[in-house]
Amino acid sequence: MTRPSRQLFDVYFSTEAMSEALGDLARLQGMLDFEAALARAEARVGVVPASVVEPIVRACRAERYDLDALSHAVADAGNSAIPLVKALGKQVAQESTEAERFVHFGATSQDAMDTGLVLQLRRAVALLEKDLAALGGALAAQARRHAATLQVGRTWLQHATPVTLGMKFAGLLDAITRHRVRLGELAPRLFALQFGGASGTLAALGERGAEVAAALAHELGLALPDVPWHAQRDRIAELGAWLGMVIGTLGKLGRDTSLLMQTEVGELFEPSAPGRGGSSTMPHKRNPVGSAALLAAATRAPGLVSTLMAALPQEHERSLGPWHAEWETLPELVSLAGGALAHALHLVRGFEIDAGRMRANLDITHGLVMAEAVSLALTPRVGRAEAHRLIEAASKRSVTESLPLREVLRQDATVAEQIPATELDRLLDPAAYLGQASTWIERACAAHDAVRAPQELP
Amino acid sequence: MTRPSRQLFDVYFSTEAMSEALGDLARLQGMLDFEAALARAEARVGVVPASVVEPIVRACRAERYDLDALSHAVADAGNSAIPLVKALGKQVAQESTEAERFVHFGATSQDAMDTGLVLQLRRAVALLEKDLAALGGALAAQARRHAATLQVGRTWLQHATPVTLGMKFAGLLDAITRHRVRLGELAPRLFALQFGGASGTLAALGERGAEVAAALAHELGLALPDVPWHAQRDRIAELGAWLGMVIGTLGKLGRDTSLLMQTEVGELFEPSAPGRGGSSTMPHKRNPVGSAALLAAATRAPGLVSTLMAALPQEHERSLGPWHAEWETLPELVSLAGGALAHALHLVRGFEIDAGRMRANLDITHGLVMAEAVSLALTPRVGRAEAHRLIEAASKRSVTESLPLREVLRQDATVAEQIPATELDRLLDPAAYLGQASTWIERACAAHDAVRAPQELP
Amino acid sequence: MTRPSRQLFDVYFSTEAMSEALGDLARLQGMLDFEAALARAEARVGVVPASVVEPIVRACRAERYDLDALSHAVADAGNSAIPLVKALGKQVAQESTEAERFVHFGATSQDAMDTGLVLQLRRAVALLEKDLAALGGALAAQARRHAATLQVGRTWLQHATPVTLGMKFAGLLDAITRHRVRLGELAPRLFALQFGGASGTLAALGERGAEVAAALAHELGLALPDVPWHAQRDRIAELGAWLGMVIGTLGKLGRDTSLLMQTEVGELFEPSAPGRGGSSTMPHKRNPVGSAALLAAATRAPGLVSTLMAALPQEHERSLGPWHAEWETLPELVSLAGGALAHALHLVRGFEIDAGRMRANLDITHGLVMAEAVSLALTPRVGRAEAHRLIEAASKRSVTESLPLREVLRQDATVAEQIPATELDRLLDPAAYLGQASTWIERACAAHDAVRAPQELP
Amino acid sequence: MTRPSRQLFDVYFSTEAMSEALGDLARLQGMLDFEAALARAEARVGVVPASVVEPIVRACRAERYDLDALSHAVADAGNSAIPLVKALGKQVAQESTEAERFVHFGATSQDAMDTGLVLQLRRAVALLEKDLAALGGALAAQARRHAATLQVGRTWLQHATPVTLGMKFAGLLDAITRHRVRLGELAPRLFALQFGGASGTLAALGERGAEVAAALAHELGLALPDVPWHAQRDRIAELGAWLGMVIGTLGKLGRDTSLLMQTEVGELFEPSAPGRGGSSTMPHKRNPVGSAALLAAATRAPGLVSTLMAALPQEHERSLGPWHAEWETLPELVSLAGGALAHALHLVRGFEIDAGRMRANLDITHGLVMAEAVSLALTPRVGRAEAHRLIEAASKRSVTESLPLREVLRQDATVAEQIPATELDRLLDPAAYLGQASTWIERACAAHDAVRAPQELP
Repeated sequence: MTRPSRQLFDVYFSTEAMSEALGDLARLQGMLDFEAALARAEARVGVVPASVVEPIVRACRAERYDLDALSHAVADAGNSAIPLVKALGKQVAQESTEAERFVHFGATSQDAMDTGLVLQLRRAVALLEKDLAALGGALAAQARRHAATLQVGRTWLQHATPVTLGMKFAGLLDAITRHRVRLGELAPRLFALQFGGASGTLAALGERGAEVAAALAHELGLALPDVPWHAQRDRIAELGAWLGMVIGTLGKLGRDTSLLMQTEVGELFEPSAPGRGGSSTMPHKRNPVGSAALLAAATRAPGLVSTLMAALPQEHERSLGPWHAEWETLPELVSLAGGALAHALHLVRGFEIDAGRMRANLDITHGLVMAEAVSLALTPRVGRAEAHRLIEAASKRSVTESLPLREVLRQDATVAEQIPATELDRLLDPAAYLGQASTWIERACAAHDAVRAPQELP
Repeated sequence: MTRPSRQLFDVYFSTEAMSEALGDLARLQGMLDFEAALARAEARVGVVPASVVEPIVRACRAERYDLDALSHAVADAGNSAIPLVKALGKQVAQESTEAERFVHFGATSQDAMDTGLVLQLRRAVALLEKDLAALGGALAAQARRHAATLQVGRTWLQHATPVTLGMKFAGLLDAITRHRVRLGELAPRLFALQFGGASGTLAALGERGAEVAAALAHELGLALPDVPWHAQRDRIAELGAWLGMVIGTLGKLGRDTSLLMQTEVGELFEPSAPGRGGSSTMPHKRNPVGSAALLAAATRAPGLVSTLMAALPQEHERSLGPWHAEWETLPELVSLAGGALAHALHLVRGFEIDAGRMRANLDITHGLVMAEAVSLALTPRVGRAEAHRLIEAASKRSVTESLPLREVLRQDATVAEQIPATELDRLLDPAAYLGQASTWIERACAAHDAVRAPQELP
Repeated sequence: MTRPSRQLFDVYFSTEAMSEALGDLARLQGMLDFEAALARAEARVGVVPASVVEPIVRACRAERYDLDALSHAVADAGNSAIPLVKALGKQVAQESTEAERFVHFGATSQDAMDTGLVLQLRRAVALLEKDLAALGGALAAQARRHAATLQVGRTWLQHATPVTLGMKFAGLLDAITRHRVRLGELAPRLFALQFGGASGTLAALGERGAEVAAALAHELGLALPDVPWHAQRDRIAELGAWLGMVIGTLGKLGRDTSLLMQTEVGELFEPSAPGRGGSSTMPHKRNPVGSAALLAAATRAPGLVSTLMAALPQEHERSLGPWHAEWETLPELVSLAGGALAHALHLVRGFEIDAGRMRANLDITHGLVMAEAVSLALTPRVGRAEAHRLIEAASKRSVTESLPLREVLRQDATVAEQIPATELDRLLDPAAYLGQASTWIERACAAHDAVRAPQELP
Repeated sequence: MTRPSRQLFDVYFSTEAMSEALGDLARLQGMLDFEAALARAEARVGVVPASVVEPIVRACRAERYDLDALSHAVADAGNSAIPLVKALGKQVAQESTEAERFVHFGATSQDAMDTGLVLQLRRAVALLEKDLAALGGALAAQARRHAATLQVGRTWLQHATPVTLGMKFAGLLDAITRHRVRLGELAPRLFALQFGGASGTLAALGERGAEVAAALAHELGLALPDVPWHAQRDRIAELGAWLGMVIGTLGKLGRDTSLLMQTEVGELFEPSAPGRGGSSTMPHKRNPVGSAALLAAATRAPGLVSTLMAALPQEHERSLGPWHAEWETLPELVSLAGGALAHALHLVRGFEIDAGRMRANLDITHGLVMAEAVSLALTPRVGRAEAHRLIEAASKRSVTESLPLREVLRQDATVAEQIPATELDRLLDPAAYLGQASTWIERACAAHDAVRAPQELP
């Protein structure tokens, strides 16, 4: 197009492959693939002459159409299929006036737009699933690699009992696995033909409508829905919600990464590269540019998802407004998800991890993060309230006097009486207080190994 | 509570059963059920003495706690489980100081809050599924009953080719069926135990953590997740998105109902009842008060869903803020869904339908809605463009001169030559131009018959 | 750019002028205008040599930069100013190595991006204000023209007491006027310099920072804020909210227009034009394509506004994520507002109005819409409850027996006794029951006449 | 009410005063205040007999009505005014059947609901303004107190050049001041009478409508709008957007506070109190419970604001659905704002500040945060690129070899040649590199001193 572009941030927030899958040419091609398959299906069923197929199919190539002219025509028509079908008719007519009579036969513009969109989405979602699977693999590898890498747990952004870095990855991995399972469930609903004609009855095809629909779905490799879904948009909203969830999960990755990269924390870093993350005024800085993209996507997705939810109450047999609101919103969400996944994959594969710093950070509270271990050991011996009181007092003294908790506890008469020194040492060792961390890793990896890409994807 | 209430619209926007399932007492009871089951599970595994179970279980009844005092304590604690566990400990201690030592043993407050919430949700979602099933049944009955009730199709709020009222119901039914299928898919993810202890490792239970978790899940009839999900909130967002979709679908019901009830349309009415939908100043009016509730819910749900999506990037092992944002938002969404379903059920069961008016409205364009039928009959005979031109001209004349399309077409030489009068009559008969309307109804009803409530629900 | 475009719907949902104002070139130019003005201001204050100004200013032309290369560099840098400043430095260095030393002197990348954005917005908002003023004018003209055009009032989509079409326009006009007043209020906050250097202190300029800032603001014709606002983003959110409100108001125009264009209502139509609003399958149809664009914008804006609100809590002195989330979201909102205003202007200027149909529709309830007039006349005579009862019964009979309300009332003994026939006739005349409709029009027009464009706009 | 409550988190997320201002009794009282004032105004104008005023006014006390019964009636009526007016009529009738005839005379239920809401809001917004003013005062005091308290600047969560704690407070203060200015601007739009009767014309009052409206506005101390605003809801959305902005700004306070309270940072703490912010399992912890409430509100507000924006396109003269969507959403937002302000005030007044830790944290990068100062000193001497290269290399060496930047720079030949040792020392002193930090504080405090509460507030 010759129109002013608005793509300066495309490379940052999306990917090249996704930009192509969601671009204008692909949008046209999706509709044209519908029209070509329609001709084939109708010829097979015998609703149109076999001879019209080739002229129509030949004209169904997006690069033959003038995007700029179509864009202006869209503004008059109120949708993109009306002008495209007109233009298609003209192209076909140049080769065969007979064929021109059967272009778009029995279909309505929404059929072409919705099914075309579904075809585009199939390609785009396949890109997402490929990256999700790769991300799962990368997370599983990191989870196993760091199954014993000690790290302080952090709740409310305060130090808590120890965890392992591997367990952190396992939690994220398990969410990714759930997203992939969800995709498998929604795929047969999403990758479904929309074909209903003017009001959804396929009346223009007389008694052959259902037969043509089945042949068309078969041609396109799409599911045949019970009922055309032109005015029931839950399939669209469902994809939007799934994208929102995926992006939100990746937002957590960005959040945690940026928190761990803080100058004061320094436990984990985005992969470095020349020129990446530099500051214009502070040459030493290393900005978490991948995390920023993840958090930007996670800040934007909720609003975009809400738009698709808001667009559900569409009027009667075809909406004006809510349907139109989907057209740019869903691709934007898909695009953001693609970009976020690419950033996540880059991060997880290339994290620079400072296990020494992690171990050191565990100690900055002088052992207070191990207070729970001692408290729990005390509880059955002196009661819940008394144990709590004892540990609270010891913790306070440890903080006030900057003494290691171990020392404070050793000096406490009750503790000394109840807990022998060697037991106390063990109780205060973070590596001995990891509970089921490795169990979670094993289970998350096993669940990851078990999940497969939906068969609906190419 | 003695605090000022804000419930004036509760009866209108929700249901009594839902208000109870989501109320403060139920919230406490959910957490207490967790604590009771924890004691039982730990006793079974042998982590705590069997004798502590009964004193703990006996204290786990919500009505024994002071909601007002708890509410104030929540504001200091930053969550609802800390004060409740404290109060529980006090109650237990009155009966057995030994039992008090094992209250909440090895758990963290988020375990009680999240699992308690899941238990509340199981009850609330069962109410929703019951109503969804009933709504599906009512829609199937209406779809079958009105399989031949002619109605004009409306696209862009303009008259289009005919449909049947039954087919309209079938489209809605199919969306409801998809929602029920989705619920079956998400149920095993949603109805899952959260149990991780302070940082998610269950370290406080030493090597017995996994065993206790399994016993606890079994006690509560919940799924045992691969990994505790305290900081991976996609299960919560997924339910929110599902609720948003359900409400959006019901919003379409409200939209279409209110449009069909318009004074100028008058095809279908909400069930009437004394005092329902009256106006304070126009005594003759009959306001679509059910549709208003449906549309209100559909206007509110997208924002609430977006909050749950926005809350996904939770920091490290426990978030501050995003997690808190879930606490009132998810119940609000569930509550709205419950109210919307009740209204939808009331509407669909009791619709007053004016089939005569539907038939009459089909004719107000003098037959123009049948233009497509004629156009398609002409297309293979005179070409797509010419057919379009002919019909456009005839339609224009029909409008300008207020003549029935039939008459105009009969006077057109080309049409007269191409289409015999009897064929023209048939082409202009709406009842003969319904395509697959009844096929869609059959399929939607069959899909409805096949779906079952998730086994996870009580 | 050579990247796949995603602009098929740009002409429909926005305008050419807006696309240019918000496009990539304008984005670069905004930042370059900042850099050029910075050099000028610093030379004036004496912080940099006067000789460096011209070489820098000459290089500050957007068309000299490679958008595609910049877009890739953005992905590494995490923002658009870092690569642009680098490229600018190179261009300047070709002319003067001395000047290169003073490029971007003392500024940070966010200064260039934020101030550049403000400059872009000033141009875009001026387009909006121009169209808002024109829309106000068109609405005032229509309001005056149709001050006596009777129309039925509609509440809950049910016929209510009469209004005038002019009053409907006046309500919309008054909202537009309020939006313009709001713009005047927010303009001095929005059109403000952002200039703080690395952390907001302007430390790099030593003691001259405040002086340079003042000179820079003066150069650019922007307000000088009390404090740099790099991490306090309420100015951005405020514009977003204003755009959301404008779009929402225009959404009401689209909603009402599409409702009035319904086949069954037919009171008012979008201006017709060849090829506009046609259907691919129903040649007679006239789709409200402008209303669809208005409603689409109104469905999308709330989610986009919510993103800007969600982006407010930005971390410390510069955020990662929330700030990035603004970059594409705010231009999208501005773009939608521009498109919506263009559609609104086209509609209001060209509405085809069927006053006859309006008058006819007033009567389709047999006079029931005038029931209030009679009810109110009865109330002081027979009491509120009795009046309500009487009118309710009469209305019911009028509906059931398809009798004019006038006739039913005349036959009622109480009514006949209380209200003489001539009074009854007057009470049932819609034209005599318009209350303050024309007062509202006068006042709305007067308020419109009084409002002026903000002086901050070019 | 006897209905199950859902208020467990009310004390945490709101305030007692706000709960009362927004509660059901206040909602009823708002409507009743409208009805009482209407009787007074109509009597003054002479539209109703003077004798009816007292009986009506006496019945206009909320505590005389049965909330539970009203709540059920709302569900039938579709709004809250219809049943209330009925109940009011009955109460009045017990005292005077004549007065009963003039209850709600000429008004419609939306008049009572909207104006009643405005009256409630006036009280609630006064609470907000009071707290905003107090917060501004507290921030100004802190800004002045800490005008010289050094703190590292943080951009992208990475250490950047130094700032002062006072400047951080000043940035927040200035946003609060802007919010107060905005409130002053929107107040005359928000605190406006809604009074239009059935369709907005006040036809029921004959020619006296405008006069009654003026008298009524005067009675209530509200502005008289140009046109009734029953279907133009920008006044409501504007308040919602303002609340969203206020909450977002407070969310930043919560974000920064929680980041500064991190165990690894430890620069600033929420005020401590017995029992506040403790953990159920880690007795030493001090959770940022106020920040959590701020961030929870900031996570929830955007979705609620989007609902009010989505509700703008209301149908014709009274909407069904969008209007209803406002009823619970706006009070929820006001309530959250009230709670957030209370938390913010508590925090800002009571912050525990560790200036020593702030100073120490400035040094943990071995002086790298001062690199910019040196780089800028070098730029005019060796050129931008060379300066950048030099500092980047020195920074890298400082990091790799854990050497203070000062030492590395001293060892660099070029630097040593260009910058004398004493100048280097000064360049590396954070206290000497604060630019305009204190200027911003002065300006923000001056702006705060200049702002006043809107005269529209009681």
